[in-house]
Amino acid sequence: MFEKLLIANRGEIAVRIIRAARELGIATVAVYSEADRDALHTILADEAICIGPARSTESYLNMNNIISAAIVTGAQAIHPGFGFLSENSKFATLCEEVGIKFIGPSAKVMDTMGDKINARAEMIRAQVPVIPGSDGEVYTAEDALAIAEGIGYPVMLKASAGGGGKGIRKVERAEDLVTAFENASSEAQAAFGNGAMYMERVVYPARHIEVQILADQHGHVIHLGERDCSLQRNNQKVLEEAPSIAIGKTLRNKIGQAAVRAAESVGYENAGTIEFLLDEAKGEFYFMEMNTRVQVEHPVTEFVTGVDIVKEQIRIAAGQVLEKNQDDIEIKGHAIECRINAENPAFNFAPSPGKIKSLFLPSGGVGIRVDSAMYPGYSIPPYYDSMIAKVIVHGENRFEALMKMQRALYELEIEGVSTNVDFQWELISDQRVVAGDYDTAYLMEEFLPNYQENN
Amino acid sequence: MFEKLLIANRGEIAVRIIRAARELGIATVAVYSEADRDALHTILADEAICIGPARSTESYLNMNNIISAAIVTGAQAIHPGFGFLSENSKFATLCEEVGIKFIGPSAKVMDTMGDKINARAEMIRAQVPVIPGSDGEVYTAEDALAIAEGIGYPVMLKASAGGGGKGIRKVERAEDLVTAFENASSEAQAAFGNGAMYMERVVYPARHIEVQILADQHGHVIHLGERDCSLQRNNQKVLEEAPSIAIGKTLRNKIGQAAVRAAESVGYENAGTIEFLLDEAKGEFYFMEMNTRVQVEHPVTEFVTGVDIVKEQIRIAAGQVLEKNQDDIEIKGHAIECRINAENPAFNFAPSPGKIKSLFLPSGGVGIRVDSAMYPGYSIPPYYDSMIAKVIVHGENRFEALMKMQRALYELEIEGVSTNVDFQWELISDQRVVAGDYDTAYLMEEFLPNYQENN
Repeated sequence: MFEKLLIANRGEIAVRIIRAARELGIATVAVYSEADRDALHTILADEAICIGPARSTESYLNMNNIISAAIVTGAQAIHPGFGFLSENSKFATLCEEVGIKFIGPSAKVMDTMGDKINARAEMIRAQVPVIPGSDGEVYTAEDALAIAEGIGYPVMLKASAGGGGKGIRKVERAEDLVTAFENASSEAQAAFGNGAMYMERVVYPARHIEVQILADQHGHVIHLGERDCSLQRNNQKVLEEAPSIAIGKTLRNKIGQAAVRAAESVGYENAGTIEFLLDEAKGEFYFMEMNTRVQVEHPVTEFVTGVDIVKEQIRIAAGQVLEKNQDDIEIKGHAIECRINAENPAFNFAPSPGKIKSLFLPSGGVGIRVDSAMYPGYSIPPYYDSMIAKVIVHGENRFEALMKMQRALYELEIEGVSTNVDFQWELISDQRVVAGDYDTAYLMEEFLPNYQENN
Repeated sequence: MFEKLLIANRGEIAVRIIRAARELGIATVAVYSEADRDALHTILADEAICIGPARSTESYLNMNNIISAAIVTGAQAIHPGFGFLSENSKFATLCEEVGIKFIGPSAKVMDTMGDKINARAEMIRAQVPVIPGSDGEVYTAEDALAIAEGIGYPVMLKASAGGGGKGIRKVERAEDLVTAFENASSEAQAAFGNGAMYMERVVYPARHIEVQILADQHGHVIHLGERDCSLQRNNQKVLEEAPSIAIGKTLRNKIGQAAVRAAESVGYENAGTIEFLLDEAKGEFYFMEMNTRVQVEHPVTEFVTGVDIVKEQIRIAAGQVLEKNQDDIEIKGHAIECRINAENPAFNFAPSPGKIKSLFLPSGGVGIRVDSAMYPGYSIPPYYDSMIAKVIVHGENRFEALMKMQRALYELEIEGVSTNVDFQWELISDQRVVAGDYDTAYLMEEFLPNYQENN
């Protein structure tokens, strides 16, 4: 096992990792930006090294400074958390080059799964269902028309080299395709120097179902069941739960096995998540993407399986064999997570950094967990993600979990900044959410307009 | 189910009960003394009623005021918590008389189990092993000599009508018995107007093993396994764990079944605990007493069984049938609780009330729970018990639980009052405690002298 671990992150996930490492008897090194001198992760770690100014690009994304901090402190491994450098294969390679274990998959696997077209090809090979689409790049509007005919409308056109929303078009009808293709392709050419497109059927609304997997270095892969993360605002998850009430035992096994095949096919190592879209009416699911890191919402899986995912990540990286087989994994009860953000729902969820004057976290009692990096008097800096806490509950069943979450949000008190606590309260009290009757469209298209009208 | 519940208690257990009730959709009424206007239970409940001055006898022990508060607010049930009126049969009777459900067993059962000699007779009838002793009262030194011969030395002489340490003598040898008997009996005569004595073998040191049971109103009784509470200071539990490492599966079943028989034999209703002394060398256990209420240490059982004991108490009181059978109860992993007291170990654990200037509770991450009624700025009043928090951890095994507790106590920060946090840290880091090699004598006779020498 490692003797010292550097955590290349901040906020609640850095604190989460420090706690796991300490419980494993591993010394911890925090890195922090100048804005995070008083951050909880800086305080709690055994050592803390300043890696640059507040701006992420100069600190939490500054690979050289982070690697130097690891070398100087003698850290044998780096846990990247999520966001920042967690899916950066160049960083993983750098770690490898200096003999520091990057806690995650290899750079090669990250690259494969990070490329949409490559990942899709891999999944087809692994017999994991993918969204009907073009098997490769599309260069002309004529080809696009023929392919769309085959997969059915609406279709999404995406720049093959794309990112950041450029070169993307949703096309509802055949008569709109040629124009849309040409516009998107030109846009892609201009933005990325590559006009090649990629197409797939639009599966929307759907259920966002993702499967947590664990893969050790010795070829063992297990899954820890699924999470339903369909409640999203602008493609950001807001509330997650496990298990999903949209799938039964048969589909659960099927989707879980598909996720395991996906991980096996690419020789995956460490914790990862395979995201699927579920067409609930048809009972069919399609591979969407793989996240090659721990997820924000991992605690709901921890609650229903009893597995400490972050500890498993560290053990796997240290070369240990997974202790649990698939048969040892049992889903018990129901867990829900609400992300608490410092933001103002009344002003289009504008970030609301500032000093926390008073704080009451609703931990205590059975089945409640609050992962947070806040403390009274702490100042939330304006430079980073606005998520400041996660409230996670576990009940014997979904109803109990919902009641627990109501109780927890009722008690939760954060004074000094605006938060989405009331928004989350409304969400978990919403009739459709209580019934579990929601999809990826529900929050944005129905709940939010109602909420904004009434608040 | 009840619509409104009054909690006749204060501190963390009152908060614990409010939370359970709220999660069951039950409105809550707190009662508070004048010293507890700003207490967390007063703040968190839906309604709060002042029941008198700070002194317990005028508030939390003031039956009439509490009953009046229940009547005025329309509460249908009263949860007494632990301590205060929780084992007062007169209070249970009063509740019954005004048609309010007392959450606990009947007054009759409380009386039976509250009387040492009656309880012993009941247990013998239920074939529950009792400490070898006199089957009834002993009136002369001669009879005492004959009985001691049979049960073996050392023996304990106790006033039959006794309490408060009066009329008690430990006798090591036959030649000391006559004098000791006569002195103790005179003392008892003077103190209680009754010189009758009761005798039993001294089982010391031993393991304090207690079994949690749940009994509904329909004759179903189950046990939730045992807790090891051998680490005590002046007969006050300091650290508790579940399961006990002193017993294996066979003994666990045997002691669990004995506890169920004990509860069945007296027609017990609600949650209760049967305390046993375990002679580890002989593998024999003896009934000590029954606590007819929820215990401070109930969370360790909740962690290893997944059962919410306080919710079960409320459901049972409402007449619901236990949903779980004995076969549904599985002990998973290992849980440890450290009681955190506002006290000064350097001054013989003198209580240390006062204002909490700064507070950091180590919740967050997997398998940690902190039950407390503190908040930053809260003033711990000097009138009540010094326990201010319970840190409870749950690991896959005992080693992980110990590591988690170390991590939790490392993070825990309470400024403004003296606490036993460092003492608890030393205790869970102690070699004998880590090895699980301790008994009811260990803390007082070995650990504490060492601790005092080094601190």
